[in-house]
Amino acid sequence: MAEKELPGSYGRPGPGEIAVVGLGPGGEEEMTPRARQALERAEVIVGYRTYIDLIASLAAGREVVVTGMTGEVARCREAVERAAAGARVAVVSSGDPGVYGMAGLLLEILAAHPRGKEIKVEVVPGVTAATAAAAALGAPLMHDFAVISLSDRLTPWEVIADRLEHAAAADFVLVLYNPRSHGRPDHLRRARDIILRYRHPTTPVGVVRNAGREGEEAWIRDLNTFLDLPVDMVSTVIIGNSQTRVLDGRLVTPRGYRL
Amino acid sequence: MAEKELPGSYGRPGPGEIAVVGLGPGGEEEMTPRARQALERAEVIVGYRTYIDLIASLAAGREVVVTGMTGEVARCREAVERAAAGARVAVVSSGDPGVYGMAGLLLEILAAHPRGKEIKVEVVPGVTAATAAAAALGAPLMHDFAVISLSDRLTPWEVIADRLEHAAAADFVLVLYNPRSHGRPDHLRRARDIILRYRHPTTPVGVVRNAGREGEEAWIRDLNTFLDLPVDMVSTVIIGNSQTRVLDGRLVTPRGYRL
Repeated sequence: MAEKELPGSYGRPGPGEIAVVGLGPGGEEEMTPRARQALERAEVIVGYRTYIDLIASLAAGREVVVTGMTGEVARCREAVERAAAGARVAVVSSGDPGVYGMAGLLLEILAAHPRGKEIKVEVVPGVTAATAAAAALGAPLMHDFAVISLSDRLTPWEVIADRLEHAAAADFVLVLYNPRSHGRPDHLRRARDIILRYRHPTTPVGVVRNAGREGEEAWIRDLNTFLDLPVDMVSTVIIGNSQTRVLDGRLVTPRGYRL
Repeated sequence: MAEKELPGSYGRPGPGEIAVVGLGPGGEEEMTPRARQALERAEVIVGYRTYIDLIASLAAGREVVVTGMTGEVARCREAVERAAAGARVAVVSSGDPGVYGMAGLLLEILAAHPRGKEIKVEVVPGVTAATAAAAALGAPLMHDFAVISLSDRLTPWEVIADRLEHAAAADFVLVLYNPRSHGRPDHLRRARDIILRYRHPTTPVGVVRNAGREGEEAWIRDLNTFLDLPVDMVSTVIIGNSQTRVLDGRLVTPRGYRL
């Protein structure tokens, strides 16, 4: 039959493609047009339930593959298999997918796949929690900063502690991701105690919950007092350097301009 | 006359507002809806010429105040004065305005202004060069990273060198902003030499020019060889940690998942 000769009438001739898409802090207001286009183009959207819910209107009418929070490996394998079978797949992360997100794992799994080289992959950046939280607080990241996750699920605590120590010693502003969870309620205090060896107890500290999304809350305290705040897994903690100050209720690290 | 009694008929009754807006890497494709709305709402747009050109269609029909690259202080003062006189002002930065951008300086100038407390300010985050460059290279920022500017215009070189040293010692991935300019052609080599005390010469290095905008170019080399690349002021340099590898031509720092 003539129809069989048409391209695509046997199913896809070759592998599909994967976009690893950063949604930004959460709301559709924070998602770039490029991210939106990548989702609109996708036939299959793969992600953690909470992220899929953030883009419900875009997910509607598409096949959605949902896994639990710790199902990252399964999620990426599924995305690669679907793309290898010809689908256009979007893997979604909140924030930027390249900052503690899904991009690295996906590229690792892709490189190990027999058809990995044939699948086109694009990483679509997004506004990451560090800068979304900074914007809510003022401008604490105007000078050199270090981004550290306090989760020891994949990294030994000794490595984390060493990084905290060096970052504090070199007067970096510190941005802490995954600052506290039920499994490790004490990490934030241990991190604070390391930093206190190098910084004054009145060094300003900003905490933002749900940065850039509905229910955003921001506080400014100092190293002495911030542990009393309701810091959790949807919080980002920013610890000032020696120059950071509070100006009219905003956290500002001067870049050094003479005024 | 009755009309005179209408609100606003004498000009604005009080101060206006300022949005410090991150344009993202450059193209309108990378600007969030929230950033676009802030620009649409503005009566006056203040910025460096190159950034204004990136948003020509949005700037059209609005008053535009342009200053040179080193006119940051004048730019922020002008923005604050205009807002104090009642205008809705947008100050634009490429990338994220809170990362070596205009947000901090603006808040400093605002805090020193007699009407500063009355002016409403919003910082609108954008996709910063670190993650736009990372996306172009693969996924090098999947683990803890340090962001360092090599510009010594406002920071003594000794401080920069000390931060490079500590970040290298603690095995952070390094992101270098302002990596090279005519005024300091040698900083990048000096930075590389510091890092080489802690990292193997074959450590992968990624360089991206014009990340996320027209004319984007990306290269992957190593600490031994990357200085030959055409690194300039519109480039971002990402230096891998001890775990970073090149997979199918992409730069990936594994997070530590067992595959």
